[in-house]
Amino acid sequence: MLPIDQGLEHGPIDFLDSPEAADPEHQFRLAAEAGFSGIAAHLGLAEKYLPDHAGQVPLILKLNGKTGIPPDEEAFSPLTAGVEDALRLNAQAVGYTLYVGSPAQDRDIAQFQRVRAEAGRYGLPVIVWAYPRGRWVDQKGGKDSPYAVEYAVRVALELGADVVKVNIPRYDPARKEQYPGEYKNLELSPHQALRRVVDLAGRALVIVSGGARLSEDAAVAQARLALEAGAAGLIFGRNIWQRPFPRALELSRRLLDLVRGRN
Amino acid sequence: MLPIDQGLEHGPIDFLDSPEAADPEHQFRLAAEAGFSGIAAHLGLAEKYLPDHAGQVPLILKLNGKTGIPPDEEAFSPLTAGVEDALRLNAQAVGYTLYVGSPAQDRDIAQFQRVRAEAGRYGLPVIVWAYPRGRWVDQKGGKDSPYAVEYAVRVALELGADVVKVNIPRYDPARKEQYPGEYKNLELSPHQALRRVVDLAGRALVIVSGGARLSEDAAVAQARLALEAGAAGLIFGRNIWQRPFPRALELSRRLLDLVRGRN
Amino acid sequence: MLPIDQGLEHGPIDFLDSPEAADPEHQFRLAAEAGFSGIAAHLGLAEKYLPDHAGQVPLILKLNGKTGIPPDEEAFSPLTAGVEDALRLNAQAVGYTLYVGSPAQDRDIAQFQRVRAEAGRYGLPVIVWAYPRGRWVDQKGGKDSPYAVEYAVRVALELGADVVKVNIPRYDPARKEQYPGEYKNLELSPHQALRRVVDLAGRALVIVSGGARLSEDAAVAQARLALEAGAAGLIFGRNIWQRPFPRALELSRRLLDLVRGRN
Amino acid sequence: MLPIDQGLEHGPIDFLDSPEAADPEHQFRLAAEAGFSGIAAHLGLAEKYLPDHAGQVPLILKLNGKTGIPPDEEAFSPLTAGVEDALRLNAQAVGYTLYVGSPAQDRDIAQFQRVRAEAGRYGLPVIVWAYPRGRWVDQKGGKDSPYAVEYAVRVALELGADVVKVNIPRYDPARKEQYPGEYKNLELSPHQALRRVVDLAGRALVIVSGGARLSEDAAVAQARLALEAGAAGLIFGRNIWQRPFPRALELSRRLLDLVRGRN
Amino acid sequence: MLPIDQGLEHGPIDFLDSPEAADPEHQFRLAAEAGFSGIAAHLGLAEKYLPDHAGQVPLILKLNGKTGIPPDEEAFSPLTAGVEDALRLNAQAVGYTLYVGSPAQDRDIAQFQRVRAEAGRYGLPVIVWAYPRGRWVDQKGGKDSPYAVEYAVRVALELGADVVKVNIPRYDPARKEQYPGEYKNLELSPHQALRRVVDLAGRALVIVSGGARLSEDAAVAQARLALEAGAAGLIFGRNIWQRPFPRALELSRRLLDLVRGRN
Repeated sequence: MLPIDQGLEHGPIDFLDSPEAADPEHQFRLAAEAGFSGIAAHLGLAEKYLPDHAGQVPLILKLNGKTGIPPDEEAFSPLTAGVEDALRLNAQAVGYTLYVGSPAQDRDIAQFQRVRAEAGRYGLPVIVWAYPRGRWVDQKGGKDSPYAVEYAVRVALELGADVVKVNIPRYDPARKEQYPGEYKNLELSPHQALRRVVDLAGRALVIVSGGARLSEDAAVAQARLALEAGAAGLIFGRNIWQRPFPRALELSRRLLDLVRGRN
Repeated sequence: MLPIDQGLEHGPIDFLDSPEAADPEHQFRLAAEAGFSGIAAHLGLAEKYLPDHAGQVPLILKLNGKTGIPPDEEAFSPLTAGVEDALRLNAQAVGYTLYVGSPAQDRDIAQFQRVRAEAGRYGLPVIVWAYPRGRWVDQKGGKDSPYAVEYAVRVALELGADVVKVNIPRYDPARKEQYPGEYKNLELSPHQALRRVVDLAGRALVIVSGGARLSEDAAVAQARLALEAGAAGLIFGRNIWQRPFPRALELSRRLLDLVRGRN
Repeated sequence: MLPIDQGLEHGPIDFLDSPEAADPEHQFRLAAEAGFSGIAAHLGLAEKYLPDHAGQVPLILKLNGKTGIPPDEEAFSPLTAGVEDALRLNAQAVGYTLYVGSPAQDRDIAQFQRVRAEAGRYGLPVIVWAYPRGRWVDQKGGKDSPYAVEYAVRVALELGADVVKVNIPRYDPARKEQYPGEYKNLELSPHQALRRVVDLAGRALVIVSGGARLSEDAAVAQARLALEAGAAGLIFGRNIWQRPFPRALELSRRLLDLVRGRN
Repeated sequence: MLPIDQGLEHGPIDFLDSPEAADPEHQFRLAAEAGFSGIAAHLGLAEKYLPDHAGQVPLILKLNGKTGIPPDEEAFSPLTAGVEDALRLNAQAVGYTLYVGSPAQDRDIAQFQRVRAEAGRYGLPVIVWAYPRGRWVDQKGGKDSPYAVEYAVRVALELGADVVKVNIPRYDPARKEQYPGEYKNLELSPHQALRRVVDLAGRALVIVSGGARLSEDAAVAQARLALEAGAAGLIFGRNIWQRPFPRALELSRRLLDLVRGRN
Repeated sequence: MLPIDQGLEHGPIDFLDSPEAADPEHQFRLAAEAGFSGIAAHLGLAEKYLPDHAGQVPLILKLNGKTGIPPDEEAFSPLTAGVEDALRLNAQAVGYTLYVGSPAQDRDIAQFQRVRAEAGRYGLPVIVWAYPRGRWVDQKGGKDSPYAVEYAVRVALELGADVVKVNIPRYDPARKEQYPGEYKNLELSPHQALRRVVDLAGRALVIVSGGARLSEDAAVAQARLALEAGAAGLIFGRNIWQRPFPRALELSRRLLDLVRGRN
């Protein structure tokens, strides 16, 4: 899948060294031509750009989001659209960012519950961006620790996610003293760490995000790692669309071949 | 009853030294084979795992919960599902965690009231996890003191619980100076302390939780203590499912025999 | 009237030296046998104990409450039941605790408004526990000062109470410097102080609470004082039910005779 | 108009040196006998006292209010009644206190919007008590400065008030350095200051409040000032009802003659 | 377009040196005579002044706003009217101020979402005042930096704005160290900066605000700059109506000629 919510989440700073990416048409055209199985976007982009590619690329309507201007200590993403919008735009699924462990978890879990219940009434699958965040996560080893990522994916499963988007956990020896309990000594390779995450997600599917832009070979290696560890799919954004169109298209095809087992 | 909400409440850390427990199928199969009178789970697990055991184990749908990442000073569990979900999943009862004495009691009592009223309209029994929590509880002797546990169970009764889940209170001489009023000198054995709790619950049934894993004999002893003190049942989770399947099954049967008066 | 909401408001500590009071049946039986004109209870007690005495004692369903575990600096009582419950339980009136002057008065007044409006639609009288509370009340002479009690009863009248439950104000020379304006010099006997309160309640009826347990004669004297000052009734709880059944029954009858003018 | 919401807003302290005012019948009878064009009261007083004077004095139902016990730093008045009540009580208009500039302006403007919209649906005029309040108002010269009063009346106009109740602004040389921008040097007589306020209210009518009790002549002088500056009416409360009935009646008639152009 | 919400947003201080502007009739007459394509006003002004010019000037009903009395650290504008009002007043579009990056963004985005959804149901276009605000914006270079303005316009696009009102960004060398990442070195002329903003708005139209009053020639120059950079229109308020009627009319016509390509 191709996520294009970074204009909201990070701001146009993500387009600074890849100017053509500032025009959402770049991403929609990419998704259509490369044959992505979905493009994840907020309502404004979906309404204004998807109709030109109708029928060519399934929509995952992102239902909540926030700017990256305030710090993430109390991270919370309010609704930017509703299930009603997803139905109207013929979305194939909805996306929700859940900040696991945030001081705002009260509101977040409750808001997710309402979204999940309403999506469920219409049979819309829910994809959860399961992100550990907030000051307590920081104090317990950070948002990329196995403790945090494992916890986040499990919360998504228990709350009813159909698909969970995760970042690959990274065991960081420099912070291990912050890790709770036995996690201090649970030294894992990325493959092992991700395999655990996939297991903990149980019957929810795991898709792995690409994060910040890597070299093409590194991106492919990360994708291969994800798939070998059991991920059901990839959700790479900046790694794709922060490249000129032809390169982005080529990399997309390499990744899609990987996912579809044709590499 | 077998509670399996720890993946949300504590996180996967509870599965670290009993890896097979990370797969909810372990717990559902246990509940079915051992003949538990109920499995208490959040919506995600109930939706994805219960259908394979339909008709074999009654569901108690847990309606609220939170992660254990933030501290418990202002503990509050938002809704993770609704009564509507409980009906759809054919739950036999719903579960609600009430953090008695928390600075967030305003929201908690009000939220419980709405859940209780809606469950009542459909005749669904409400099981209250009556947990003293928050900074004021800590200042008055802690969450396990007779003062706190007695207060919690009574609140559950007055607010309309049908069943109350409690931890066994522990009189702690080292903290007794923090206990309010006459509780300072109310030195009670565990049996006496639990008996008082059962009495204070009045016509609400008390079920006793097992807490962290004990040896098998200690778990059985705790169960016997609970039943002798008047508890109507047991709700043991980690003590059961943090064991390999055969041992868990055996212990479950010992406990169920106790409850059913066949030991 | 016999109020039995102390298990929630104060906790089981109120039952420590009168153990039989821990069983709500004690209070319900008392109310029935002594012929109280009402028992004020939260939903859980009303649902589980009143049916055994159906037709013998009118119910005042208390609609909000809180635990006494957090301090009262920002006192607020969330809803514990709704008007819908009062109708279902055939209550004769509903009770609402309003913490006048609390920093949480925003929520409290708004919540009361909704309860009052809904009760009004069904013709249910509203009894207001008019309690001055919170840090600003403390700074202005405390919750028992004539300033505070007079203010509280007036607020109840202006917001639409039908009946107001008050504590007898006490002019405290030691704190008079904290009293606002002319209240500093308004030295009043208890009779005078209560008379003013009754006058300020206007066409709302005043009932006087008994507070903590007194000797029987002192309780009777307080009742006489209340009635002589114009109170329409008494609402004594701990003074009644913190006694063994026969003594409680006897005292109840003395008080009821007073109210009914037969002493 | 005769406002009688001070029992809620200030408390019974306003009745201390005019005891007969403690009985709302005093004010209702005054309004009826003197022929006031409206009495502004909260729901409780309106329900209990107005029926005795039905048809003799139009009701302005005050829809929000608060006690004066907490400080005004974050002033906000929650709803004490609804438009539904106003219709039921046959009110001729509704009153709403808007604390302009308060840190709670978010909730206040939103709450006003809902009241205004609902009142509008039924054709009920809305009278706004436009009061600058809160810590930022204090830092910018106080609630009586021309800056603050002008701002408040303009906000009322822009938000949809039909009538605006204001206090007469007072240019205070001692605080002028706190005044924003050019207001520092906008030295105005009371007449000039009020004239500006009337102009800024545009097509909303301005009524001027009387504030604390003055001598009768001073009250009349203030009324004359208000009318000469363009006010459409007066809303004097304590200046009227903090006097014995005959004096209050006489002053009322003097003021009413002024308003009706018969002085 | 002619915005006239400054009486609420800034207060009457904006009228101090252009007294005739205090009367909203000034602005409405201007809009009608000069042939503006819209006047943006809050409900109170629209209700009371627009009917005199019915059919002569389209209404953009501003749906939220706040006073400028509290500081902007946690800026948030509550609703001042609803979509229902816009329909009733026959508005051609609705306006919404979104404070991008504010600590209150949770409430703001959620509130916008509801407004956008409801406006969308009726086919009403939504114009977003996209304003970076709040303490985190200040720490990252201020509300006029390219970083902040670009981010704000993009958020408006992603959340579903049809039209975006922006201020022209200003690269400020003195604050560039506060700018995030590559923005430090992105030294842009006003034309370049605005062009980027227009590009980032994608298929949402950009209209440029005039800000505080400039000389007439400077205002015209700013308008030309805006149009040359790709803006679809201008929304000049104080630059227009803070002038005497004839001058305001003349300047309006110069600007309108520019927009309509007749200069």
